[in-house]
Amino acid sequence: MVARLTESKVSLTHGSGSSEAWRFIKELIVDRVPENLRRVEGGYGLEVMDDGAVLKLNDGSYLVVTTDSFTVNPLKFPGGDIGSLAVHGVINDLVVMGAKPIAFMDTLVVEEGFPESELREVVDSMINSLVSEGIALIGGDFKVMPRGSIDKLVITGVGIGVSRRPIVDVELKPGDKIIVTGYIAEHGATILAAQLGLLDKVTNLRSDTKPLTKTVFKVIETFEGRVHAARDPTRGGLAATLNEWASSTSLTIKVYRDKIPLREEVKAFLEALGVDPLSLASEGIAVLAVDPEVHEEVLKELRRVGEVNAEVIGEVITPPNKMLVGKVVGVTEVGGKVLIESKSINLPRIC
Amino acid sequence: MVARLTESKVSLTHGSGSSEAWRFIKELIVDRVPENLRRVEGGYGLEVMDDGAVLKLNDGSYLVVTTDSFTVNPLKFPGGDIGSLAVHGVINDLVVMGAKPIAFMDTLVVEEGFPESELREVVDSMINSLVSEGIALIGGDFKVMPRGSIDKLVITGVGIGVSRRPIVDVELKPGDKIIVTGYIAEHGATILAAQLGLLDKVTNLRSDTKPLTKTVFKVIETFEGRVHAARDPTRGGLAATLNEWASSTSLTIKVYRDKIPLREEVKAFLEALGVDPLSLASEGIAVLAVDPEVHEEVLKELRRVGEVNAEVIGEVITPPNKMLVGKVVGVTEVGGKVLIESKSINLPRIC
Repeated sequence: MVARLTESKVSLTHGSGSSEAWRFIKELIVDRVPENLRRVEGGYGLEVMDDGAVLKLNDGSYLVVTTDSFTVNPLKFPGGDIGSLAVHGVINDLVVMGAKPIAFMDTLVVEEGFPESELREVVDSMINSLVSEGIALIGGDFKVMPRGSIDKLVITGVGIGVSRRPIVDVELKPGDKIIVTGYIAEHGATILAAQLGLLDKVTNLRSDTKPLTKTVFKVIETFEGRVHAARDPTRGGLAATLNEWASSTSLTIKVYRDKIPLREEVKAFLEALGVDPLSLASEGIAVLAVDPEVHEEVLKELRRVGEVNAEVIGEVITPPNKMLVGKVVGVTEVGGKVLIESKSINLPRIC
Repeated sequence: MVARLTESKVSLTHGSGSSEAWRFIKELIVDRVPENLRRVEGGYGLEVMDDGAVLKLNDGSYLVVTTDSFTVNPLKFPGGDIGSLAVHGVINDLVVMGAKPIAFMDTLVVEEGFPESELREVVDSMINSLVSEGIALIGGDFKVMPRGSIDKLVITGVGIGVSRRPIVDVELKPGDKIIVTGYIAEHGATILAAQLGLLDKVTNLRSDTKPLTKTVFKVIETFEGRVHAARDPTRGGLAATLNEWASSTSLTIKVYRDKIPLREEVKAFLEALGVDPLSLASEGIAVLAVDPEVHEEVLKELRRVGEVNAEVIGEVITPPNKMLVGKVVGVTEVGGKVLIESKSINLPRIC
């Protein structure tokens, strides 16, 4: 027996949404819960590690519940603030589960001495985001921590939605086309610039935070059963979403790299910093895996309802060899081929 | 127009669970939400400011959802830790809403550098508390904040329960008998001693944190419809619960002060510090307002199933005069009469 020389500590990587973070959480939490207590009978829960949990109701419909903590720094940024971000983040987790959001709850943990006026702004932003979507605020909690024991404010949001047919991402199938509904990495690039104090210099950055109810959810409803998997690529970005999908189904995802919607300004800014846009968070887009029979119609409908930058960026394939089981491979028109891995960008407090 | 000389800041009082805290939250949040978006149709939400929100299902039954953030300091204390406390706190919020807990979700916000071994202990404690109650862990979130931006760990718990008949505290009626199911202030006194570094000296303190499913919920089920109001007197203590009940119904609550179950050691410790036990948190008891016709049977049943220290401590009365509308008045056997007010004890991170 050898004594442990160094004690393991929680690192920023563990909260990064990357593949490494998922493995950590699986081992820390999921694996410790007895198999029969990872879901409520008839629904889905911890075992699918999806955006939300699903409860089956007696009338055959489903309730979807999701929760997320928001720690974004700074609290206000171009395009939004922690209040709107919390609402949109939770709403979009419901949308990509195939659920219509109906109710929200919040807990606010606030630092003693935080200006009331700033708190009011955040709360009003949160409430306005709910009101414009017709979502009820049905409860919550409010705690104050002493000065210095929390930096300003953390919001935890809880979302409740209803669904006739929830989307559980393990339903991903070979042949599915991968659609991204808009420019990637807009939110991540904006927060990164803010944290580096560069917003004055890079003025064309703006978070894409927005609710996907009126666009993506509408299309999911129209094509019920034909969207096999859906996720909002927040922490960990597009790369994390695709790697989780490939890994949990042991399939391969082929990505046409040139097709990924990426705004020129965001690309240039991230290149200058050496940050991979595929691993950066978005807050107002979804990644969909769509039945190939209808994928062109889905794309057309997404663009028609307002997601004008939606693109087909890849497809799910049966692994061509053992090396590519559960992997994401990027191809380019000129014939390059690279593994797309889920990198841990240690950019804390991005959402 | 005069400029504001000092800017208002969030204070520990705002998070204390006292009457003042409730007024602050009402003005900050509840009043800002349009009346029609304070609940989902057929249910109860923000307007009742109760322990949980209620959704009416199509089969006539109800789903109760609740959320609470736990910031307790220290993370471990005699009788429990932040993991078990989060589970019990959420479970008991469901129980006092008349709901059987079926599922739990958690979000962990952890400080970078926090020892993994301590995190594992907390998570295992949380999971063990769920497993022993047969409650499923169906999802959650995990965030890491940089060193110094959060003190160790905050857990937010979400609870989901089912109910045939939810208990909404505005149903409190004149004549109802008030029952407290066990010793008050045990948790608050323990955390207070820990924070003051006095646990070595006052060795007989121990948090009462525990789930109320097997005792209080069982009795609530047996006497369905006869328990008109129920609450677990956590932050703000018994005084806050009773004052909220009196104030929200404009009734008066008469309390027989000598009947309140208070352990001698806790009483002595709090007296020495000048802290009012009526305003200190409990985590393993409930306050019930019971139909007077069955209150003796309810008391007997509570004691039979294990709450041996349960007592009838008061009754709800029609206000005898204008001064006592919405007030709580304490009487003693020797004839004293005092208003029992909800005091803000600025004891942060008690739960």
